[in-house]
Amino acid sequence: MFNYSKREKLIKPSAIRELAKLIQDPEIISFAGGMPAPELFPLPEMALLSNHIITKNGGKALQYSATEGLVELRKIIAFRMKRFDVCCTEENILITNGSQQGLAFSGKLFIDEGDVIICENPSYIGALNAFRIFNPRIKGVSMDENGMRMDELEKTLQEYPNAKFIYTIPDFQNPTGVTLSPDRKQTMLKLSEQYQVPIIEDNPYLELNFNDDISYPIKSYDNTGNVIYLGSFSKTLCPGLRIGWIIAPKEVVRRYTLIKQSVDLHTNTLSQMEIVEYISRYNYDGHITEIKDLYRTRRNTMLKAMESEFPANVKWTKPKGGMFIWVTLEESVNATNIFNKALEEKVAFIPGDSFFPDGNVSNCFRLNYVTMDENRIVEGIKRLGQVLKKEVNE
Amino acid sequence: MFNYSKREKLIKPSAIRELAKLIQDPEIISFAGGMPAPELFPLPEMALLSNHIITKNGGKALQYSATEGLVELRKIIAFRMKRFDVCCTEENILITNGSQQGLAFSGKLFIDEGDVIICENPSYIGALNAFRIFNPRIKGVSMDENGMRMDELEKTLQEYPNAKFIYTIPDFQNPTGVTLSPDRKQTMLKLSEQYQVPIIEDNPYLELNFNDDISYPIKSYDNTGNVIYLGSFSKTLCPGLRIGWIIAPKEVVRRYTLIKQSVDLHTNTLSQMEIVEYISRYNYDGHITEIKDLYRTRRNTMLKAMESEFPANVKWTKPKGGMFIWVTLEESVNATNIFNKALEEKVAFIPGDSFFPDGNVSNCFRLNYVTMDENRIVEGIKRLGQVLKKEVNE
Repeated sequence: MFNYSKREKLIKPSAIRELAKLIQDPEIISFAGGMPAPELFPLPEMALLSNHIITKNGGKALQYSATEGLVELRKIIAFRMKRFDVCCTEENILITNGSQQGLAFSGKLFIDEGDVIICENPSYIGALNAFRIFNPRIKGVSMDENGMRMDELEKTLQEYPNAKFIYTIPDFQNPTGVTLSPDRKQTMLKLSEQYQVPIIEDNPYLELNFNDDISYPIKSYDNTGNVIYLGSFSKTLCPGLRIGWIIAPKEVVRRYTLIKQSVDLHTNTLSQMEIVEYISRYNYDGHITEIKDLYRTRRNTMLKAMESEFPANVKWTKPKGGMFIWVTLEESVNATNIFNKALEEKVAFIPGDSFFPDGNVSNCFRLNYVTMDENRIVEGIKRLGQVLKKEVNE
Repeated sequence: MFNYSKREKLIKPSAIRELAKLIQDPEIISFAGGMPAPELFPLPEMALLSNHIITKNGGKALQYSATEGLVELRKIIAFRMKRFDVCCTEENILITNGSQQGLAFSGKLFIDEGDVIICENPSYIGALNAFRIFNPRIKGVSMDENGMRMDELEKTLQEYPNAKFIYTIPDFQNPTGVTLSPDRKQTMLKLSEQYQVPIIEDNPYLELNFNDDISYPIKSYDNTGNVIYLGSFSKTLCPGLRIGWIIAPKEVVRRYTLIKQSVDLHTNTLSQMEIVEYISRYNYDGHITEIKDLYRTRRNTMLKAMESEFPANVKWTKPKGGMFIWVTLEESVNATNIFNKALEEKVAFIPGDSFFPDGNVSNCFRLNYVTMDENRIVEGIKRLGQVLKKEVNE
C-alpha cells in the first residue's frame, strides 16, 4: 500500500538509541548515554519560570512566534558568544530545536546525492544519521590527541575539492573527548578558505571546559563568514527544552530560516522565553561552574579508576572538558563482544563502530563519565576492568 | 563560497508569513493571520503547570526523552480520538512539533522528485511549501460546498495511478472553511483503497465544530490502515508549545519515528508534560466549548456584516467550524489589488492565489474571523465592503 520515497531506505536508527533499550534496567551502571547529569538541572528555578513569563507576556507566551526565534533570546546568545570572541548580532542567529535540527538543516541546505562531506573519524552518530538521509559520500579524517589531522584533511580536500562542507566538533568532541588545538583550528579555517569549502562547527560542549582558560571556537577566527556555528543549551542548562542555535552570515541564516519555516514553523515559544527568563533572573554562569565542578570530579574519578583497573594494553583519551572518554583496545579485540560481556556484569558503554562513517573500526568504545555518581563510577570501572582483563590478552 | 544543494532553490517563503510583515501596525484590523484567539489561552492554569510537573517528575521533565513522545501523552490522544471513532493505541502515535512537522515528514517519507501528489484546490500554504521542497508535481482537485469533488478526484487518480498520496483537510478546511461531506469522506477512502494511494488527513480544526453533531474524520472509516492522520493542540489549547501528532499503522509510525530521530531527536519534554498535566488537571473539553462559543459568535458577526456590507456579486463560504471564510470575487478582479487598497484603509486579509498549487486563481481571498473582537470585525468588514464596492463593478 505505502510506496515510500527512495530516501526512506537511507533512514537508519541511531545505534545509541537502539542500545539504550537494552540498558533500561536501573541496576545497570551505565556509561552509555549522551545525557547530561539531571541532578544539576535548576529545578526550583525552572519550576517557577512559566509563572513569571505568563504574568509578564500574557498570551504571547503561548502563541505562534517568529521562525527566526525570539529577538530577546537571539540577543542573549549574541552577547554570550562575545566572550568566545565570536562577533555576531541577532540577525546572524536562527533558533533551532536543539542543535540536532541545525545538523539536519545543514544536510538539507548543502547535500545533493553523491556529494562528498568531510568529518572527523570517528564522529557524532546523530550528525552522521542526519546527513546520511541525503545520501552523501562521507570521508572521515583521522584524529590524534590534538583533534583532526590537518595533513590528512588537506589531502582529502585535494582529492575532493568539491566537498560540500567540513563537519567538526572541535571542542571536547563526541565521542573522543579530544579538542582541536588552536593552531589546527586556524589551519582548518585557512584550508577551508583556500579550497572554498565551508566549515560546520558543532560546539555543544564549548562552555564545559574544565580548565581556567577559554576554548575559542573556530568561528572566533572567522573573518570571511566561512564557518556555520551550531550551539545548544542542552549541555549547560537542560536538553528537554530542545533549544539550540545556528550562527551564520545573514544570507545563510535566511536560507536556514526558510527551511525551518517549511519544516515546523518555529521553535517552542514558551521554552525560548524560559531560557531568556532563566538567564535574566538567575546566575547561569554560576550554574555552568557547578556543572563543570561536578563533571571535572567525575572525570578525575573515572580516569583514576581506569588507571588502576584497566589492563596495560588498553589506551584512552584524557578529555579537558565535555562528557566523554574514548577507549581503544588492541586491534584484534571486538568492543561489541566486550559490551555483551560487560552487560552480564551490569555495566554498559557504547561500542565505537557506529561512530565511524565506514563502520570499519571495531576495537573502540565510548564512556560517559557525567551521569553516574562517584561510587558507581568506581564500581563500574572495576567491573569493566575485570571483563577487559578476562577478554583482552595481556 | 556556499555551494547549496539543488533543493535549496525549491525552498520558498510562505506568502502568509511575508504578508505578516506588512501587517504589524496594531491599528490594522487584521483578518489575515492563521492564529487562534490568544485571549482564550488558559493562562492562569498554564502558568502553574511546570511547577506541578517538576515537583512530580524532577529532572525527568527537563531531560532527553523518547523520540516517539511521552507514553502518557500518546495514551491521552488515543483515548480522546475514540469519541471521533478513531481506534488506535499509543503505538500508532508519534508526537511531532506541531502538525507542520508531520507534513514535512510526510513529504520526506513519500515524495521522490517528479512524483504526483493530489490535494484540494485551494489547499493549505504550509503544506504546499513543506511538500514542494521534495519537488513533486502537485495536482489540485476542485472543491464545491461539500469539499473536494469526487468525480474529479477519480479522474485525477485514473490519470496518475502512481500518485504518492491524497492530501486533504476534510473538516473546516484552511483556507475555504468547507467540510468534506460524510458521503464523500467514505468515497475518498474507497478510491484510496481502489487505487492504492494513501490519504494524508490533516485535521487540526476537527474539534472546532460549531454545531452539536460530531464531525467524523476520514480515519474513523479506515479499516485497512490507508489513512495517515495528523492532529494538533495548536487550535484547541495553544500553538506556542508546538505539539501535534501523527496516527498511522505501526510500521508507518516506525518510519516516521526514524525520521524524527535524525531530524531533532524528540519533541520538547516539558511541553509534552504540560499538555498531559493540563488535560489531567483541568476541564479541557469545557475549554474547547468556550473556544467554540467565542468563534461561533465571531463567525456569525462576520457573516452578518458581510451580508450587509459586501456587494452582491461577491460570494463566500459559510463555515460550520474552524477559523476561516473564503471569499470569491468576479473572475476579472485581482484580490492582491484589493489587498493593497484595503491596507490603505487599515484592513488586511490573505489574497488567495498562493493557496492554489498552480497559483493561477487570483480572484479569491481568505478571512480569519477568530482573532478580532466583534467591534473590529464589524468595522473591518464595513471598510472592506467600501473598498470592494469601489473596486468591484456591480
